[in-house]
Amino acid sequence: MWPAGARRRAGLALAALAAALALEALAAWRRRRRRPPPVREVLFFPSRLTCTEALLAEAAAPGTCLCPLPRGDCALSRLLRRLLSARRSLELCLFAFSSPQLGRAVQLLHRRGVRVRVVTDAQYMALNGSQIGLLRRAGIPVRHDQETGFMHHKFAIVDKKMLITGSLNWTTQAIQNNRENVLIVEDEEYVKPFLAEFERIWEEYNPINYTFFSKENK
Amino acid sequence: MWPAGARRRAGLALAALAAALALEALAAWRRRRRRPPPVREVLFFPSRLTCTEALLAEAAAPGTCLCPLPRGDCALSRLLRRLLSARRSLELCLFAFSSPQLGRAVQLLHRRGVRVRVVTDAQYMALNGSQIGLLRRAGIPVRHDQETGFMHHKFAIVDKKMLITGSLNWTTQAIQNNRENVLIVEDEEYVKPFLAEFERIWEEYNPINYTFFSKENK
Repeated sequence: MWPAGARRRAGLALAALAAALALEALAAWRRRRRRPPPVREVLFFPSRLTCTEALLAEAAAPGTCLCPLPRGDCALSRLLRRLLSARRSLELCLFAFSSPQLGRAVQLLHRRGVRVRVVTDAQYMALNGSQIGLLRRAGIPVRHDQETGFMHHKFAIVDKKMLITGSLNWTTQAIQNNRENVLIVEDEEYVKPFLAEFERIWEEYNPINYTFFSKENK
Repeated sequence: MWPAGARRRAGLALAALAAALALEALAAWRRRRRRPPPVREVLFFPSRLTCTEALLAEAAAPGTCLCPLPRGDCALSRLLRRLLSARRSLELCLFAFSSPQLGRAVQLLHRRGVRVRVVTDAQYMALNGSQIGLLRRAGIPVRHDQETGFMHHKFAIVDKKMLITGSLNWTTQAIQNNRENVLIVEDEEYVKPFLAEFERIWEEYNPINYTFFSKENK
């Protein structure tokens, strides 16, 4: 057997170690509790057709819309809710944008003071039904490519921390008829490179770089 | 002060607690060490043009290709490498598939014994340059939609644990000219729903459900 003094010292050392480990475990548990896990959601389309009026009307009151569409959740309403959670900024990088509901959501955010910026494809934005003209008229800055290839991205970044991306073009055809996917992601490993890609494209598509052809040059 | 017996028992209890916490911390550290962090990669296109021959030639030996393209990494070669890491299975759910390099990679995996299954869009697979006919002739099972909407997904699942998805159609136009993104993801929260979506579509597009129109019915 060890002498009593050594036993006491060993006991104290063990008690100190136990206390330190317990404190560390408590701190780790608190860190996990304080930081909610990152959003990791997948939406699949075609979306069920439901009424999205309650989400989009600025002074939304339940039961205000009299349309016969069913109420309840669908892929489109979940996408709208994620977008409408924006408080400070919204970056949009969209090949095609003609969905009236998504257009209304973006204008609503703009009116609420969210800083919205849009990058789009030049060929597509000129098509009938495009929302781009409406957004521009509402005062939202839009930039577009002048390239032969397509600006084929379809992503949004909410408050610089939530990435919404996938195969879905923001058109009614895609939402209602196509097989499509959308990922909603808060992991930094994805959000940061997409934010950098947006800023890169935003600078490249600066109107001071646009080239114009006048009739005289023809 | 406590009596000696109580002190001894308290010391032993603390020692047991310390040992238990230390063992738990060690086990958690070992678990973290054993499981590499999930792959979280983002690729942006257009891809730089480089020689991908060394990746695709079955008996690849460095320096065998005499083409003048630069060597080195690019978005396409990184995508190819992820695909070629498949050992057991590859699910493809692709709107458009005409890239010869990606077609060769899929055929290479099929020859190596990887179970490849392809779902695609009926309108697009009939276009000139589509790889779908070549894959079918090589013995790879392909199913397609008979819907009015597009099967617009563009994703692959490697060995049921790595998801490759984004805006990129598997065409040379998209790879070389478009602004595109591809996410490479091992997080279960994303991989599982995409796998379920693939199986759902695979069953829905079972050829026993196809409808055919004969001339007599016209």
